[in-house]
Amino acid sequence: MLITRRTIRIEWGDCDPAGIVFYPRYFEWFDACTLGLFQAAGFLKGDLESRQGLAIPMVDMRSRFLIPSGFGDELTVETTITRFGRSGFDVLHRMLKGADLAVECTETRVWIRLGPSGPGRLKSQPIPEAVIQALSQDSK
Amino acid sequence: MLITRRTIRIEWGDCDPAGIVFYPRYFEWFDACTLGLFQAAGFLKGDLESRQGLAIPMVDMRSRFLIPSGFGDELTVETTITRFGRSGFDVLHRMLKGADLAVECTETRVWIRLGPSGPGRLKSQPIPEAVIQALSQDSK
Amino acid sequence: MLITRRTIRIEWGDCDPAGIVFYPRYFEWFDACTLGLFQAAGFLKGDLESRQGLAIPMVDMRSRFLIPSGFGDELTVETTITRFGRSGFDVLHRMLKGADLAVECTETRVWIRLGPSGPGRLKSQPIPEAVIQALSQDSK
Amino acid sequence: MLITRRTIRIEWGDCDPAGIVFYPRYFEWFDACTLGLFQAAGFLKGDLESRQGLAIPMVDMRSRFLIPSGFGDELTVETTITRFGRSGFDVLHRMLKGADLAVECTETRVWIRLGPSGPGRLKSQPIPEAVIQALSQDSK
Repeated sequence: MLITRRTIRIEWGDCDPAGIVFYPRYFEWFDACTLGLFQAAGFLKGDLESRQGLAIPMVDMRSRFLIPSGFGDELTVETTITRFGRSGFDVLHRMLKGADLAVECTETRVWIRLGPSGPGRLKSQPIPEAVIQALSQDSK
Repeated sequence: MLITRRTIRIEWGDCDPAGIVFYPRYFEWFDACTLGLFQAAGFLKGDLESRQGLAIPMVDMRSRFLIPSGFGDELTVETTITRFGRSGFDVLHRMLKGADLAVECTETRVWIRLGPSGPGRLKSQPIPEAVIQALSQDSK
Repeated sequence: MLITRRTIRIEWGDCDPAGIVFYPRYFEWFDACTLGLFQAAGFLKGDLESRQGLAIPMVDMRSRFLIPSGFGDELTVETTITRFGRSGFDVLHRMLKGADLAVECTETRVWIRLGPSGPGRLKSQPIPEAVIQALSQDSK
Repeated sequence: MLITRRTIRIEWGDCDPAGIVFYPRYFEWFDACTLGLFQAAGFLKGDLESRQGLAIPMVDMRSRFLIPSGFGDELTVETTITRFGRSGFDVLHRMLKGADLAVECTETRVWIRLGPSGPGRLKSQPIPEAVIQALSQDSK
């Protein structure tokens, strides 16, 4: 499977009064990592218009928080697909602090097209075979 | 069990280019609802100092997203405890759009005291009996 | 002039490791207050589509920070228009902690229509007379 | 004067339903750039404790928004000091889209020490001469 890696540096404003990352920030980073994975494979580039209304909203998510992080820490997020269904798929993020797993998150998302009547009209679509192939190849 | 309710109005800046809530926002609201539940019972009020370093960091979280919401929508979050362990406990958030469940989230958190050597030094503590009693009483 | 008021309760996740509000949060609240002012007058309700691409992006902003706030504080934001130009206008936010001014912000925004070729194509428009009249009336 | 540069990639979740950056995000980036400037000069590293309660809160800010940006855009922030007073100083951020100025922001901050009675007790301090010297040297 294709794996992408991104370095995250924890900023002052990412942390709460206990001095550790306010946990919703992790999901901002993971969302960017998921899009980054698809873009590394050549898909979902540009805005909604240029990608013909295709989007990958979340339907389910599980996350574990093992090691807290604070201002100035640098972590690496490894992102890959762990399951392809017909229109749904699972994305796994492993956020590493050195060699240790700090946060883990599995997202279940669906491949959808936004309807002509605007946001809220979500129609799930079969994931194109080209997407599955591109994301299934091993990382070099 | 004690249940608290909070109304969330979706603002323009909570939404992404698809016109729906950028999902990490949900967890900002849920975090505030969890603290609000404890405060409704008389605990965790004020800053870290006034509460003697007590905090309730997350260790595990599961969430389901059933109905997307957009700018101007008003939703209600119902928050309650669903399990008390020795130092761990589960918080359930049900975010309702009218009568329909839009987002559901279960958090597993631990009752900890921040160590004297600063953030990162987390020591789990038995949940005080007074906390369990206050949160276990039925809502009026 | 029409004045709208909104109560802001500072949440744990709004604050940084120094225990005070991370200042970009103020602008999230002020943005919601500006839209709230227009909505109180009957304009800019709903999403971009229902309002025919009308938006009020910021071109200039000045802000002063007089009193820091922390977790649990409740403040009131008073919002009003202080200048109407042809397509530009100024919005003043005064954020009060009790009777004291804590944060003040003046935004200069323009009345625009998003072009058919998508975001980034901004065309300024004369502010409709009905908007000016509605926002110029005294608060009851 | 020392100038630091940082590349910002606009993520999906940074943008609003009009497809452009929700403007409070700019200030999250600028805050990180200001801290980065001091850190490049060897100061304000680590958490509040390790830096003995020293912080640089904002007292005044002016910003201009010239070119909107959207998902996938990459911009460069150039950050430098433009004024040193006794305990106050000005930081200028110029956010460039290619060769064009997209957003400009001037922050006035003060050099303070957090009082022993916790957040909110801010005591301004003379800026140490070593800080002024380090930040005043020309970038190589």
